[in-house]
Amino acid sequence: MEAPPRPLDVRKQDTLRRLDQDVDAWVSTAALDGTPYLMPLSFLWTDGTLLLSTSRTNPTARNLRANPQLQLTLGAVRDVIHITATADVTDPTPAEADAFATKAGFDPRRLENYPYFRITPTKIQAWREVNELKDRVLMANGTWLV
Amino acid sequence: MEAPPRPLDVRKQDTLRRLDQDVDAWVSTAALDGTPYLMPLSFLWTDGTLLLSTSRTNPTARNLRANPQLQLTLGAVRDVIHITATADVTDPTPAEADAFATKAGFDPRRLENYPYFRITPTKIQAWREVNELKDRVLMANGTWLV
Repeated sequence: MEAPPRPLDVRKQDTLRRLDQDVDAWVSTAALDGTPYLMPLSFLWTDGTLLLSTSRTNPTARNLRANPQLQLTLGAVRDVIHITATADVTDPTPAEADAFATKAGFDPRRLENYPYFRITPTKIQAWREVNELKDRVLMANGTWLV
Repeated sequence: MEAPPRPLDVRKQDTLRRLDQDVDAWVSTAALDGTPYLMPLSFLWTDGTLLLSTSRTNPTARNLRANPQLQLTLGAVRDVIHITATADVTDPTPAEADAFATKAGFDPRRLENYPYFRITPTKIQAWREVNELKDRVLMANGTWLV
């Protein structure tokens, strides 16, 4: 039996727990010529933003420097957390960088040319099955709706 | 303990089984202005291509009609099948449309404005953990390497 749709506040709690506990996200960027690029990257949820790092030479980093728009998803195709966001190159605090290294399993500070990006969500949607497509928007224009 | 890296022929077998059995893929497209869009869609693996369908008004369909480049991934972030491909609007055979409806759980023929897209892979990569990043390319320029 299909589970009943979750109310918005439960979806938000589930989403915040997943942002806290999940390690990797699918990160969808595009070059300015419209070439899409999709890659899994580890992230740290910190202060309402996601912290990412990847080699400066990777298409994800090249795309984000030229075109800061991105979408990210967490989790399975039938338990989706879908984030629309913008990216800025950032210097994380030492505490953030420590937490990122622990969670991601690598420390960009020890690598050459691994910039950090701070990903600020502007829209967050969460749904499991078709019956949750209604009311899937949890954040719009950077503001939580619940 | 981390599993040893799979040889290329095993990765190809695993990839073909997943293309056959998995129901949904993450589909990454972009508008011509570089706005990325990431969405899970059901697919049918048929004759070396993936068959997708989504509403003509969805950004994925709008993007693919304007800009046929896309990337798709199957499965988990630690068991990645990563496909670079091009899309064409298509009329599937009746057998393909039947198989798609059975697998996807909806029949685009019964819906208004649900075009089909035939997705032709040009590059396929498969990896689980970092030790499989080497030799992750299984198809290049549309040709299987194994």
